[in-house]
Amino acid sequence: MMATPDELRPVEWADGAVRLIDQTRLPHAFVVKEYRDYREVAEAIRTMEVRGAPAIGAAAALGIALAALEGADLAPEAFRAHMDEAARVLASTRPTAVNLFWGINRTMAAVAAAGAGSPAEAAKRAVEEACAILEEDIAVNRAMGRHGAALIRDGDTVLTHCNAGALATVGYGTALGVIRAAVEQGKRIRVFADETRPRLQGMKLSAWELAREGIDVTIISDNMAPALMRRGLIQCAVVGADRVAANGDVVNKIGTYGVALACRAHGIPFYVAAPLSTVDLQMPSGDEVPIEERASEEVTHVDGVRIAPEGVPVLNPAFDVTPAELVSALITEVGVLRAPYEAALREAVAGAARPGEER
Amino acid sequence: MMATPDELRPVEWADGAVRLIDQTRLPHAFVVKEYRDYREVAEAIRTMEVRGAPAIGAAAALGIALAALEGADLAPEAFRAHMDEAARVLASTRPTAVNLFWGINRTMAAVAAAGAGSPAEAAKRAVEEACAILEEDIAVNRAMGRHGAALIRDGDTVLTHCNAGALATVGYGTALGVIRAAVEQGKRIRVFADETRPRLQGMKLSAWELAREGIDVTIISDNMAPALMRRGLIQCAVVGADRVAANGDVVNKIGTYGVALACRAHGIPFYVAAPLSTVDLQMPSGDEVPIEERASEEVTHVDGVRIAPEGVPVLNPAFDVTPAELVSALITEVGVLRAPYEAALREAVAGAARPGEER
Repeated sequence: MMATPDELRPVEWADGAVRLIDQTRLPHAFVVKEYRDYREVAEAIRTMEVRGAPAIGAAAALGIALAALEGADLAPEAFRAHMDEAARVLASTRPTAVNLFWGINRTMAAVAAAGAGSPAEAAKRAVEEACAILEEDIAVNRAMGRHGAALIRDGDTVLTHCNAGALATVGYGTALGVIRAAVEQGKRIRVFADETRPRLQGMKLSAWELAREGIDVTIISDNMAPALMRRGLIQCAVVGADRVAANGDVVNKIGTYGVALACRAHGIPFYVAAPLSTVDLQMPSGDEVPIEERASEEVTHVDGVRIAPEGVPVLNPAFDVTPAELVSALITEVGVLRAPYEAALREAVAGAARPGEER
Repeated sequence: MMATPDELRPVEWADGAVRLIDQTRLPHAFVVKEYRDYREVAEAIRTMEVRGAPAIGAAAALGIALAALEGADLAPEAFRAHMDEAARVLASTRPTAVNLFWGINRTMAAVAAAGAGSPAEAAKRAVEEACAILEEDIAVNRAMGRHGAALIRDGDTVLTHCNAGALATVGYGTALGVIRAAVEQGKRIRVFADETRPRLQGMKLSAWELAREGIDVTIISDNMAPALMRRGLIQCAVVGADRVAANGDVVNKIGTYGVALACRAHGIPFYVAAPLSTVDLQMPSGDEVPIEERASEEVTHVDGVRIAPEGVPVLNPAFDVTPAELVSALITEVGVLRAPYEAALREAVAGAARPGEER
């Protein structure tokens, strides 16, 4: 699928290199970086040059492809060790989004399927698989958008949190893909973008990517959403996810849980848009998912400027858990899932795994 | 009451001048400014050099005193016009905290009580009344602390939002006064300070003022509190108020309502510490209280640095309304009030107005 000139492609494969939009520079500067070493890709994931669960899954898959190309001339034994090390390095970058491990595992499986004999063939297969992941991601997001847009009514104001947009994926976005699809259907939609402290992805990424397409977006501080709901100014919330547990609990950017609680208190639907690659049936509930604690500087500094008093400790959990009972619906590429989620998720994952069915 | 060397005095009267700690410079610089013109005091209130409901009430009272001194040589008719203008200018600075109007009205009443004949005598009375307001504020806060500390248990972690500390008052604080009193009683208390976007008073003022006294304080982003509650890490919340309506609705810094909702969802007590000067029996409910909308630059910029994308609109309501049913108790200088608040507030205000009773 070709991107139109206006479409954002934060993760791309280009002639043996990985191209990433450096999201730590947005919205002030639009910088595309090119990496030919998987270790650099790992570092870009760790420092959040690339972020968003589907995007880091895709970037990690491309990292495996880079590693395979680098090792293509090794003897089979050395190649295997080299690839295991690459998988380890890429997997150790961030703990919470399951797409990271999904992207690594799927590409490593393609390497393994090539057989032990030919590293060069394995490298070719790794590149193909990683590129397939990228292509599928956009198709999956468009399918999610089609399913989810039906939940958004003409005239609605939609709250979103963090960035589950084109920038969080290979393109089009998950939560913002749903909003895009509703707008493409001709619905008049207004978006409130929570700024999303501490890294401000809602302000710096979601507001930026929606505004550049002319979608009506207004920035609010995270703590304003409940008051706006009480005044009747928000009709629904749509967010993404970093991991969906088997019971439907949603692990997503810190602050998501507070949005869900406020939605519940006001009778406002709270929707989560996530591809099946974000679903982790191995996790019984969200409480088992490792929650990344990031550096205190993310809270004490903004754009390199210290804002906090010196010497005061900080907590900085990057994600929280929204229990399934607060989730009005899970929007996936195979359709809109409703509670009870345990059964719906198992069925969706099993169905998607059967070949030949429409995704 | 003399301040110990360590006690913060954000609003002081000093030989015909008003001394204010410039709170826009904290925590990076400790700057005390001295004003001899009421118009400068009004500007300091508008720009939030001084902020916090009791502190702006006190500062406005001192502004009236400055105006009276300035006009002491005028003819009675001109003096009255001059004072009415001063009251108008000071009252137009900020709309939400009722203490502003309370401080102005009380000092203007002292001027009126001096009789029409002698502006010099009226000026003397205005200074005395404003100084009495300052002195009373600290006593009131200590009484609030004594009453409120009984609600905090040894070992509790207390969440607070914005700054209802010494810096928001003449000294000691309202919500942080309750925490101070609990610590003075020997209780081991840990505090989570919500950073309080957009102006970060929780991070820049509350965390700073608690840390300088050695009270155990940790900064969190506003959107982290619900997740910490879900993990059992918070035992109660204590906040201040800018106005308490007759029915017990609490108007306070934006984000307070979200804290109250999260407390309710987790069965955690949500306490409001406010002097009776913050109670407005003329307002039937919080929904009638004017909510100040402040400049978008407070959201788009931090410490003068633009963080938001250009050209995206912003909402910036400075306060929100927490309905009385979410308030576990109102801590006042006459005791801890419980629902139904309408009767409790009327009784408390009437009782406090009777002379000779202990406040």
